[in-house]
Amino acid sequence: MSHHRASRADLSRYVAGMLKGSERYLARLITLVESESETVPGIMRIIFPSLGRAVKIGITGPPGAGKSTIVERLTREARDRKRGVGIVCVDPTSPFTGGAILGDRIRMDRHYLDEGVYIRSMATRGRLGGIADATSNVSKLLDAYGKELIFIETVGVGQTETDILSIADLTVVVLVPEAGDSVQAMKAGLLEIADIFVINKADRPGADNLANELMAALHSREDRGGLERPVLTAQAANDVGMAELYMTIEKQLEAMRNSGVFEQRRVEQRRNEFVRIVETMVRSSLLRSVDEDAALRDFVGRVEQGTAEPYTAAGELLENGSLIKALRGDG
Amino acid sequence: MSHHRASRADLSRYVAGMLKGSERYLARLITLVESESETVPGIMRIIFPSLGRAVKIGITGPPGAGKSTIVERLTREARDRKRGVGIVCVDPTSPFTGGAILGDRIRMDRHYLDEGVYIRSMATRGRLGGIADATSNVSKLLDAYGKELIFIETVGVGQTETDILSIADLTVVVLVPEAGDSVQAMKAGLLEIADIFVINKADRPGADNLANELMAALHSREDRGGLERPVLTAQAANDVGMAELYMTIEKQLEAMRNSGVFEQRRVEQRRNEFVRIVETMVRSSLLRSVDEDAALRDFVGRVEQGTAEPYTAAGELLENGSLIKALRGDG
Repeated sequence: MSHHRASRADLSRYVAGMLKGSERYLARLITLVESESETVPGIMRIIFPSLGRAVKIGITGPPGAGKSTIVERLTREARDRKRGVGIVCVDPTSPFTGGAILGDRIRMDRHYLDEGVYIRSMATRGRLGGIADATSNVSKLLDAYGKELIFIETVGVGQTETDILSIADLTVVVLVPEAGDSVQAMKAGLLEIADIFVINKADRPGADNLANELMAALHSREDRGGLERPVLTAQAANDVGMAELYMTIEKQLEAMRNSGVFEQRRVEQRRNEFVRIVETMVRSSLLRSVDEDAALRDFVGRVEQGTAEPYTAAGELLENGSLIKALRGDG
Repeated sequence: MSHHRASRADLSRYVAGMLKGSERYLARLITLVESESETVPGIMRIIFPSLGRAVKIGITGPPGAGKSTIVERLTREARDRKRGVGIVCVDPTSPFTGGAILGDRIRMDRHYLDEGVYIRSMATRGRLGGIADATSNVSKLLDAYGKELIFIETVGVGQTETDILSIADLTVVVLVPEAGDSVQAMKAGLLEIADIFVINKADRPGADNLANELMAALHSREDRGGLERPVLTAQAANDVGMAELYMTIEKQLEAMRNSGVFEQRRVEQRRNEFVRIVETMVRSSLLRSVDEDAALRDFVGRVEQGTAEPYTAAGELLENGSLIKALRGDG
């Protein structure tokens, strides 16, 4: 993909332009980062000193819960307070849900003509882990660009989405009253990822029941870091409860900061990210060395043909120095 | 989790029992493998010589497409031909879809009292990549146990599911006529994973249209390895089209074997699996060494605190020998 090749000088120019406020350069850097190109480490190194101000808010929920509307309203609340907002919509490109989500996106893209808001849709069809890493890196670009609040919106229908949310500082789970029937089944998973619950479309029957069920479920669990997890009702489309949600997010963030949960979560996120980066580098070194080193190619070839048992072979690779040579680049 | 601790002697006993035909030992080994415990490499080493006969068929589609019914009917076709069948139902534990899938499972579990069929539901809530690896390892156990056909059923709603299917030899995508509206949006993703399409509930309006659309879409694409990809219509609940589907699967497998696609796919799968195993070993070594080695802990600590840039730090780790020491186990 030759259009993704950017020299080191290009990168420095793009980053300098972005840091001066150019949205065009920001967009170009996001495209580079999204494509998981070899330029990612270089970009991340250059922007590193500019990071650290932005807070990442994850917004998730089933299709049709009104996530996009909620993100839009929260964005207005933030803009009223003169805060810069970045929005990342992640669609883990299911072959079966693609259409509806795309529609939402287009609707939202048209809404934001405000210069203080940058919105980007991502549909990364990469290998496992690729989406969460790409989302994290795009968030870093938005952070370096000066955005203070970054909303990460994803439809909550699978493991991948949960992993995307693992990069957020705080996660809001959006439900609708009809979800009440299946709340028993959902509870475990929801309680793991949610810091705040919003029952949207609360004018429909069942909203209070769902709120009560959730509060009971939360009550019977250990709090995480001693923090309560609020359950709100709202009607985003009628602008009911949106200022309250915004303020609840701010209060929750403050409570997380005071209790140390905020920093603790970031430490874990940085450790996980670091381990993934190391893994990716090891994988690249290994695959490159297989191409270049006939003996190693032979060795891996036996695994590929099914004649060598893979766990034994992996252990040998680590012990006999082949991988170590590969990592040192002298394979 | 002390109940997952099994000594090497235990493992040998379990495997010996399983290879003699004990379903109880099979179940125990699957539980060990599902939990991604440290015993996995040992189990895989012992069963390796017994592998290679089973063929893995992936069955996917949106919720409500009738996947479980189709698996059940295909199982009967296979049993009529005296073939041993294993069924792995994978639910990537979405907090929003958990309930419905669980219902399907229970329904299906009750159906199989036949000794020639082993069925197992998995709901692995692990880290990225964990589900595909666990499914692959469970399939290997079923293979060693003597099952000739293994159906891997998963609801097709996200990236994770696509990764699960990457371990199958052949994948059947099940659709329903109502899916017609959104077929444009789905096409790209479906064409990537499907070897055979089944339009189930074909008595509903729109089945022929959907079939035609799919065939047109397939026609305009390059075939993979020169193979055609059949599009069938069926009514699984009324047992219409099920013998045809079974025979189409057999024919497709034969065509894949003759063209070399079958073995080529397995070679790629084995390579990917090997790289994942190496990555996992590197990760474990790194995390263990961080616990044991104060200098390394300090180094990673700077990344965790956000004072060191992670890509730079990962590069240093690979170059300065810290990781190499860790891999050698002399950290």
